[in-house]
Amino acid sequence: MKATILIHCPDQPGIISSVTGFIHSQRGNIIYLDQHVDKQAGIFFMRLESDFSNQMTSLEKFNEAFETDLAKPNKMEWNIYSDGIRPKMVLFVSKYNHCLYDLLSRYRSGELDVEIPFIISNHDELRDIAGQFDIDFHHIPITSETKSQAEEKQLRLLKEHHIDFIVLARYMQIVTETLISEYPNKIINIHHSFLPAFAGAKPYHAAFERGVKIIGATSHYVTEDLDAGPIIEQDVTTVSHSHSIKDFIAKGRDLEKIVLSRAVKLHLERKTMVYNNKTVIFS
Amino acid sequence: MKATILIHCPDQPGIISSVTGFIHSQRGNIIYLDQHVDKQAGIFFMRLESDFSNQMTSLEKFNEAFETDLAKPNKMEWNIYSDGIRPKMVLFVSKYNHCLYDLLSRYRSGELDVEIPFIISNHDELRDIAGQFDIDFHHIPITSETKSQAEEKQLRLLKEHHIDFIVLARYMQIVTETLISEYPNKIINIHHSFLPAFAGAKPYHAAFERGVKIIGATSHYVTEDLDAGPIIEQDVTTVSHSHSIKDFIAKGRDLEKIVLSRAVKLHLERKTMVYNNKTVIFS
Amino acid sequence: MKATILIHCPDQPGIISSVTGFIHSQRGNIIYLDQHVDKQAGIFFMRLESDFSNQMTSLEKFNEAFETDLAKPNKMEWNIYSDGIRPKMVLFVSKYNHCLYDLLSRYRSGELDVEIPFIISNHDELRDIAGQFDIDFHHIPITSETKSQAEEKQLRLLKEHHIDFIVLARYMQIVTETLISEYPNKIINIHHSFLPAFAGAKPYHAAFERGVKIIGATSHYVTEDLDAGPIIEQDVTTVSHSHSIKDFIAKGRDLEKIVLSRAVKLHLERKTMVYNNKTVIFS
Amino acid sequence: MKATILIHCPDQPGIISSVTGFIHSQRGNIIYLDQHVDKQAGIFFMRLESDFSNQMTSLEKFNEAFETDLAKPNKMEWNIYSDGIRPKMVLFVSKYNHCLYDLLSRYRSGELDVEIPFIISNHDELRDIAGQFDIDFHHIPITSETKSQAEEKQLRLLKEHHIDFIVLARYMQIVTETLISEYPNKIINIHHSFLPAFAGAKPYHAAFERGVKIIGATSHYVTEDLDAGPIIEQDVTTVSHSHSIKDFIAKGRDLEKIVLSRAVKLHLERKTMVYNNKTVIFS
Repeated sequence: MKATILIHCPDQPGIISSVTGFIHSQRGNIIYLDQHVDKQAGIFFMRLESDFSNQMTSLEKFNEAFETDLAKPNKMEWNIYSDGIRPKMVLFVSKYNHCLYDLLSRYRSGELDVEIPFIISNHDELRDIAGQFDIDFHHIPITSETKSQAEEKQLRLLKEHHIDFIVLARYMQIVTETLISEYPNKIINIHHSFLPAFAGAKPYHAAFERGVKIIGATSHYVTEDLDAGPIIEQDVTTVSHSHSIKDFIAKGRDLEKIVLSRAVKLHLERKTMVYNNKTVIFS
Repeated sequence: MKATILIHCPDQPGIISSVTGFIHSQRGNIIYLDQHVDKQAGIFFMRLESDFSNQMTSLEKFNEAFETDLAKPNKMEWNIYSDGIRPKMVLFVSKYNHCLYDLLSRYRSGELDVEIPFIISNHDELRDIAGQFDIDFHHIPITSETKSQAEEKQLRLLKEHHIDFIVLARYMQIVTETLISEYPNKIINIHHSFLPAFAGAKPYHAAFERGVKIIGATSHYVTEDLDAGPIIEQDVTTVSHSHSIKDFIAKGRDLEKIVLSRAVKLHLERKTMVYNNKTVIFS
Repeated sequence: MKATILIHCPDQPGIISSVTGFIHSQRGNIIYLDQHVDKQAGIFFMRLESDFSNQMTSLEKFNEAFETDLAKPNKMEWNIYSDGIRPKMVLFVSKYNHCLYDLLSRYRSGELDVEIPFIISNHDELRDIAGQFDIDFHHIPITSETKSQAEEKQLRLLKEHHIDFIVLARYMQIVTETLISEYPNKIINIHHSFLPAFAGAKPYHAAFERGVKIIGATSHYVTEDLDAGPIIEQDVTTVSHSHSIKDFIAKGRDLEKIVLSRAVKLHLERKTMVYNNKTVIFS
Repeated sequence: MKATILIHCPDQPGIISSVTGFIHSQRGNIIYLDQHVDKQAGIFFMRLESDFSNQMTSLEKFNEAFETDLAKPNKMEWNIYSDGIRPKMVLFVSKYNHCLYDLLSRYRSGELDVEIPFIISNHDELRDIAGQFDIDFHHIPITSETKSQAEEKQLRLLKEHHIDFIVLARYMQIVTETLISEYPNKIINIHHSFLPAFAGAKPYHAAFERGVKIIGATSHYVTEDLDAGPIIEQDVTTVSHSHSIKDFIAKGRDLEKIVLSRAVKLHLERKTMVYNNKTVIFS
């Protein structure tokens, strides 16, 4: 069995040695280890990929030992993910199709090791694309009056299918606390600006107005503060006076696709950890 | 004689043909032409490099004809710059030396076609570097009480030496209206962030706090709104959770140098035009 | 009527003025003008977008006048493209689907102003994707014995449908003189390296072997010299020792998609001109 | 005491645990650990920063224990570097001054934790810059007849001053086996192209001729194969048809400075390891 283990705890001398010694004692072979210490916050982070072949007695016993021998004494928070289990991801969309096409193409090509049980949208426009890729499409309209019922409906669907995380692929609605509290650090958004510049609506228009020479896109975990959650990935591209707002939008589409898909992959590969509204992104 | 001509005027049919026809009629050969129309604002911009060899009667007569035949009828604002004249640039610095070293090295290498009659600083720390490059150094200290006298003193020096433009090479003071009104779109600043993100003080600290994955630097013309003037040039570099604020600052230094020197070159080569608090940057 | 005009001719004084004057005399309004002089080769290049509204008598007469008054005296080669006509593009593919998905998604979204009458492939694997997007798919297998017949078959299809240009979207066959001579500077290839580095087969393997820190992709017009045609667009991404060949390939896929689609757009917008095995790419 | 330890050895289960356990047993606190396994080659690489405070008996005893308990049983090659010792670096230059200015400015600013006892040049042109920065300058002319004597002279100077590594800052001579064998993986060169493209002389001319849209610079360790040594760092910048060879050279200068200084820093911080003509670059 292969597994990925994520750990964070207060920093202390000997912590790397303790962890690696424990894994070794459990007949695990560490294939990959990445670690980070936030010196300001005094927190230690670690990501381990380990191969336990068939020597390990059982995952249950391993977890028990880890908890007792390692986690408790070191005040660790930790998670273990077996390689065999594919997480379930749901896409939220509205009317823009470029991120949807990009993610579904990658999914269909086997690039993303994930299941996509269905797509949710507050509009019906992108139903055909879901059809092209044989994926269920739930049209749940939202008005200011029906917002909370709509979110309840979304939540029921997500629970029913044991969805692990949500990707807002240019979903043009603000997600509320109802969903966020159920999926903390598990809702990935793509914002079409180089955050924190141009948060909120119409960032390309604002960027054009300001006369910037570079535009960007930012993928982040959704928190209750709009466009202010922990940043997973950003990228930029150059623009000039010769580009219109329409050109900004066209160039931005390519950025958004790339940045969102990178963030989704990092999340899927368990390479992201969140603390203090920031991320540690392991390589 | 070679000359660079910058023009802007209300957009109208036939304007390119009118200008190029006029230059041709004056026995000028257009070596380079770049043009831009801001469709929203309805403004036409043009940059011409022209070779008049020895066929042109006189610059004076050319200017007269241009004004009468071309500029007036088309409501143009325009400037002509002969290639032979080197502009005079002054550097304002405080304590950081990287931009100063970079610009002086380029100057000494002949990379910048400019004169640098002297350097002004509110601190004395960088006097030695001025000495290394044999450039006069004026230490004009500034306190909140003496600020206006200090600026008067700066202005006197600038006027006395017929300085054309000013470069704030990490000058840690806010320049006031006194200087700005005398040098409109002629004071170039380098701000150590990807504007409009992180305007104001300590941008690297703010970027670190926000957990961005990319940091930037921005060179702009100074206006009375702090860090809000027309942007000339921007560039960025990637950072990660593993970088400390100190690392941000070190990476930023290289960005600041490059971005400021590019902006200075663009200004020197008359490739910048300003309107609506934005720039047209010709290539 | 809007039209785009591409011109190249020996460089000479007054040429810009001649062209713009002519357009003006034909009641055309120049919306966009970009020009370039290759000083080494002494060649002048120009791209004009012009709006003739309903004032122009006829395209035929315009062309005649252009030929007589402008082209002949100045030894110009030139082309005019009316905005209303959508070019016909055919995709050649083999087994890789990422460039195909990317181009078809852009096509379907209306991002590419083009018709795609059909797809040609030497394998049958990607037929389903063509089906997803309702595009005809011609499977024309190729072996070393049947290569020339297969190319004749391809050519017949292309001629029959009046195809304007061809995009090799990771087509794993060498295209021969049969096709190239019929489509000079009209076959666009994507090569998965930063040419001229790693031309030929297995560039990611070669890049890995050499230990480069950056990999690239290159889109170029196909000529008889393998991977040596005029370069339209290139882009790169960073890699490190921690990336395997598989990682190179995954990162490269994203590069290939972006670079190829940019090249296709530039070609579609008539922004490319070819000479001396190089391109002028207008902005 | 702080120290950096570099290790490589055949990969094997439990190796990370062995090393970290050993450091812990020696009362060292691991501040930073980065590791890499080349799966193809079956080699394990590790870089450790460790803090031994005043608890460690002596460096000598530590080294002995490391050798006996860890290195021998695991067939390790390893090095330990105490933080307190500043390496000695010598710059080789010819006539180009941009990399020299850049490195000396960084050195003077305290950005590079190194000593520069002197500069060697085959020309006398840059003596003044050495003077500006108060550094000894040895002019050792080279002709095809005197090459080997000149190199002997260089070598004597290097040995006499216990020089640790050499930086060829646009040194326009081929360094021979005489020096290379004495300084294996300790001579850093900057080549003004994106290697392996355009190795050898006049890379900017070759890039211009080929019509590339991106140019680069590469810093690498010098081996006996010209421009083919292990790559430390690369970077690129975009160019277009509008750039002349002179523009390529000007843009390239900025690349060369940045890429070389990054490589020098990586080397200084013991973040580079070499094997199979490739580098592992720790972050």
